[in-house]
Amino acid sequence: MLPLESLDFDKLFSKIPDKLERTENLGKVASYIPELYNVNPHKFGIHLITVEGTDYFYGDSQERFSIQSIAKVLSLTMAFNLEGGALWERVGVEPSGNAFNSLSQLEVEHGIPRNPFINAGALLICDVLVSRLKNPKEEFLDFVRKLVGKDDINYSSRIALSEKEHGFRNAAMVNFMKSYENIKNDVDTVLDFYFCLCSIEMTCKELAQSMMYLCSNGINPLNGEEVLSPSRTKRVNAILLLCGFYDEAGEFAFKVGLPGKSGVGGGIVAVLPSKYCVVVWSPRLNEKGNSYRGIKILEFLTSHTRSSIF
Amino acid sequence: MLPLESLDFDKLFSKIPDKLERTENLGKVASYIPELYNVNPHKFGIHLITVEGTDYFYGDSQERFSIQSIAKVLSLTMAFNLEGGALWERVGVEPSGNAFNSLSQLEVEHGIPRNPFINAGALLICDVLVSRLKNPKEEFLDFVRKLVGKDDINYSSRIALSEKEHGFRNAAMVNFMKSYENIKNDVDTVLDFYFCLCSIEMTCKELAQSMMYLCSNGINPLNGEEVLSPSRTKRVNAILLLCGFYDEAGEFAFKVGLPGKSGVGGGIVAVLPSKYCVVVWSPRLNEKGNSYRGIKILEFLTSHTRSSIF
Amino acid sequence: MLPLESLDFDKLFSKIPDKLERTENLGKVASYIPELYNVNPHKFGIHLITVEGTDYFYGDSQERFSIQSIAKVLSLTMAFNLEGGALWERVGVEPSGNAFNSLSQLEVEHGIPRNPFINAGALLICDVLVSRLKNPKEEFLDFVRKLVGKDDINYSSRIALSEKEHGFRNAAMVNFMKSYENIKNDVDTVLDFYFCLCSIEMTCKELAQSMMYLCSNGINPLNGEEVLSPSRTKRVNAILLLCGFYDEAGEFAFKVGLPGKSGVGGGIVAVLPSKYCVVVWSPRLNEKGNSYRGIKILEFLTSHTRSSIF
Amino acid sequence: MLPLESLDFDKLFSKIPDKLERTENLGKVASYIPELYNVNPHKFGIHLITVEGTDYFYGDSQERFSIQSIAKVLSLTMAFNLEGGALWERVGVEPSGNAFNSLSQLEVEHGIPRNPFINAGALLICDVLVSRLKNPKEEFLDFVRKLVGKDDINYSSRIALSEKEHGFRNAAMVNFMKSYENIKNDVDTVLDFYFCLCSIEMTCKELAQSMMYLCSNGINPLNGEEVLSPSRTKRVNAILLLCGFYDEAGEFAFKVGLPGKSGVGGGIVAVLPSKYCVVVWSPRLNEKGNSYRGIKILEFLTSHTRSSIF
Repeated sequence: MLPLESLDFDKLFSKIPDKLERTENLGKVASYIPELYNVNPHKFGIHLITVEGTDYFYGDSQERFSIQSIAKVLSLTMAFNLEGGALWERVGVEPSGNAFNSLSQLEVEHGIPRNPFINAGALLICDVLVSRLKNPKEEFLDFVRKLVGKDDINYSSRIALSEKEHGFRNAAMVNFMKSYENIKNDVDTVLDFYFCLCSIEMTCKELAQSMMYLCSNGINPLNGEEVLSPSRTKRVNAILLLCGFYDEAGEFAFKVGLPGKSGVGGGIVAVLPSKYCVVVWSPRLNEKGNSYRGIKILEFLTSHTRSSIF
Repeated sequence: MLPLESLDFDKLFSKIPDKLERTENLGKVASYIPELYNVNPHKFGIHLITVEGTDYFYGDSQERFSIQSIAKVLSLTMAFNLEGGALWERVGVEPSGNAFNSLSQLEVEHGIPRNPFINAGALLICDVLVSRLKNPKEEFLDFVRKLVGKDDINYSSRIALSEKEHGFRNAAMVNFMKSYENIKNDVDTVLDFYFCLCSIEMTCKELAQSMMYLCSNGINPLNGEEVLSPSRTKRVNAILLLCGFYDEAGEFAFKVGLPGKSGVGGGIVAVLPSKYCVVVWSPRLNEKGNSYRGIKILEFLTSHTRSSIF
Repeated sequence: MLPLESLDFDKLFSKIPDKLERTENLGKVASYIPELYNVNPHKFGIHLITVEGTDYFYGDSQERFSIQSIAKVLSLTMAFNLEGGALWERVGVEPSGNAFNSLSQLEVEHGIPRNPFINAGALLICDVLVSRLKNPKEEFLDFVRKLVGKDDINYSSRIALSEKEHGFRNAAMVNFMKSYENIKNDVDTVLDFYFCLCSIEMTCKELAQSMMYLCSNGINPLNGEEVLSPSRTKRVNAILLLCGFYDEAGEFAFKVGLPGKSGVGGGIVAVLPSKYCVVVWSPRLNEKGNSYRGIKILEFLTSHTRSSIF
Repeated sequence: MLPLESLDFDKLFSKIPDKLERTENLGKVASYIPELYNVNPHKFGIHLITVEGTDYFYGDSQERFSIQSIAKVLSLTMAFNLEGGALWERVGVEPSGNAFNSLSQLEVEHGIPRNPFINAGALLICDVLVSRLKNPKEEFLDFVRKLVGKDDINYSSRIALSEKEHGFRNAAMVNFMKSYENIKNDVDTVLDFYFCLCSIEMTCKELAQSMMYLCSNGINPLNGEEVLSPSRTKRVNAILLLCGFYDEAGEFAFKVGLPGKSGVGGGIVAVLPSKYCVVVWSPRLNEKGNSYRGIKILEFLTSHTRSSIF
């Protein structure tokens, strides 16, 4: 790996417009709820923050979008902190080798989700937080706001409602896990919290800021507080690398080579430990449900800076 | 096949006590709800009615028990009548080759249950009846009472409630099918009707009477009315043979050789078309979830009368 | 069921030409080996023999075709006779609920094929015969010739060779079962016997004759010898009903209502116990791999004679 | 990540004896062939080589053992070099989420193995090499010898023969893939090469030396030659991280945090890119088939040096 000083991001970001022009904007915007479907498919934003605190950005990086599944990184972090290693008795850390919302695997493995990022796993994490927190929604939002350093980060109640109306598969999963006694709380309470969580809206910049602890040994650089211990931070990064992109995890590790997480809103966050956190946003998704141009641009970024973890 | 007159049921029934004595009462009573678990495991009843109207019986054949999944034969009959061939676009007629409550198969086949007797299929049949009937619970009970010729057949609200409290897996299935748009009504309404349906209590005699149309070309012998057309009656019998015993359908066809249906309450109904309908009840279940002694005694019955359909 | 005398086959067979004219000849001829692919797709033959020995036939019923998987009924019969009930420790009697050549199920069930008619099960039956017989090929052919009453029934070495050249999936299955120690003999010997077996050629008439024991309590009507005991004969019929049509078993039982077995050469044999055996042949196959017109004509036959087992 | 100079391996290696004493030697030696089963279960060796060329070692690090599946890293490297990106049309880069020798997944994905390290994938890589090389066995051995810098690295013909005698599952997989036309060569030739490959014997030191290109941007440090391009080297490391430990990949990434590969002989190789390559050997395997003490010691190593890639 090259020393950080050789990563000339200024030069690299200046080439992004040209690279974008030469990159087709393929794929489809998520269509299962109107709030996602109506987003302008030509939007593109990118924001990178180094551990030294320098910002690099381009495009619509200041426009808020629905972070969707990326929120699962933050809920996992909170649950891991509260529950410790006991968490892994209820959810695995293995890649799924299957679609993000498969019930078959859950059946084969008796109600233990493979990892915290497939839907079943994320729902289980919500159940943990519902058990541990007095006011899950408020406390989680508070946690996120502190990471971003802004008080106006919010859930979108419209999106949460829309999700709920199309959430039968998620309802199936919570009920199914409860039949294995791996969900402790009321089914509707867990679902309600889950839909809220996925409805958070942030800009590329805010989202990158919120994840800086992942490349800073677990420290929130805004206030110096420890969000997660260094060793647990590494473990979250490992899970991100192996499970952050559903059935495209291998492809992403292969081409981009960074721990990361995607959301169906078209966002992707990626982390080079000890170096930087970067967020891209481009709403059109490839067949695996990950941002088409997002992956292309991250591939461009890491191959030009030779900055993968491998 | 021997002519009916040679089926000397008098003689055969007189041998049942001795046969029972020589048959171990193995297996376990269903334990997931107290109402089933608290049933005396030594109960045994059998009742056979011929198309000529002769009754043969032994043991606790006049004691009511929870018919559970056997009710699915009656709900299928009602739905087939109302919906006709269109029914088969929403549920298959193939054996499942899997446990009765598997979600994996439902996933592979995109929300279309394999047959009307696995749980998912029976839930779908409930959805059809909820769509078609004004007062599903009343009208279904009415339908059953006419078949039995008794006004005091009832749902057990205690059992229905207990089932509901343990019904997360069924809730998972309804939600899952709804995510494939193969459930048209409200999830809770469908589940509520389903739990009611399975809670009906009857004696061996009443249950045998209620199914006489299956060996009488679809005619209710009590009033001469057509319950189901002759050709549809044959088709229900075919589905019973192939799918009536979950993952033990082949074994039952192999050893007993009659269309039939079992319930987790320990009841089994079996039909020899044009000849007789027989019900046995013995609460202890084998590993596949079918009455242990029930199957043994039916095997004894058909091998001694050489009266299988094969 | 109507008494046999009321089954006016003369009249019914006279209607077959008209029925055929009104039945589209859809589907595709099997194309994986040239010997099957080059068969004239317009061929159609049917031959029915009653237990009284009367013959009814139409079309190309005297032309030999490749019986393919139908031979598995005969090899099962031979193996059941030699091995008795111990056979069922190595192969199940449950419908497969899957394609005929699936390896997944074999994996889930640790090398025990679900039934003797899926490919894995038929290969296992070959292994049993290889263990039990001195000269498996000769002795099996002898067995078949006695059933038909003709000395010129033969394997087609051309077809057997072609099968072998495309038999990698079957080779995979034998190796896979051997890894579970459920194949006792040399892999190539078992495969070689299997490909031979499926290459037998017969006319509709010969094939119907060869299976008459299935509707005659196990007696070969040509010589009065017992091919299989009455109770085992019933059991073979039960397996045929549940497993004879791969993933279309339920559909066939539902529509035709007889135990039967199809082959990829376009033949179907069906049996009404104590009444008749019928064979149809029409090379074009439906999506499930069963003769398209064969099933249509059998449906016509049983619905007009009201002669299903249900 | 700490700078290399702070990784005081001298001190760390001096603590290994004590750590070993406090680590139970649980698990079981592989028992499917006598050559593996008869290995002394108390053996333990470790050897680490830094990119600067310093060696650290302990225990039986100079004793040769059967590297088994670790050889698949070397065959993949050779095939990737010869075939380039086209390789990924025939084998995936996704973690398997299943046992290393599952056929179900191969069926679901139509004969395309999920990655090059599950058995099916490694067999496919052998097929590629058989197509590309004139004398596969000689040329592959030559390739390995150059990496190690020793002429006496050899296949063990005894082990290869034993493997073959128990290789029915592998034979099933090659035949199965050939049925999907994803194997181009003769089944036996591919299997023969595969069994040879897995039979190579090396010491911890030799094995570590052979993999130094993985932490040196693809350069063989012994002769300065490029074994694989830098970008392809990164990609192999990514595949190692995601797929190197069968169904324990997530666990290993989570706890150890390095790309690596295990073998059923008890060896594990792990790589910290740009820093070091380390090999441990301890024959007893945990439930997932990976060296029990091997993983414990690597966890000790990376947690004390804080040297994971995350």
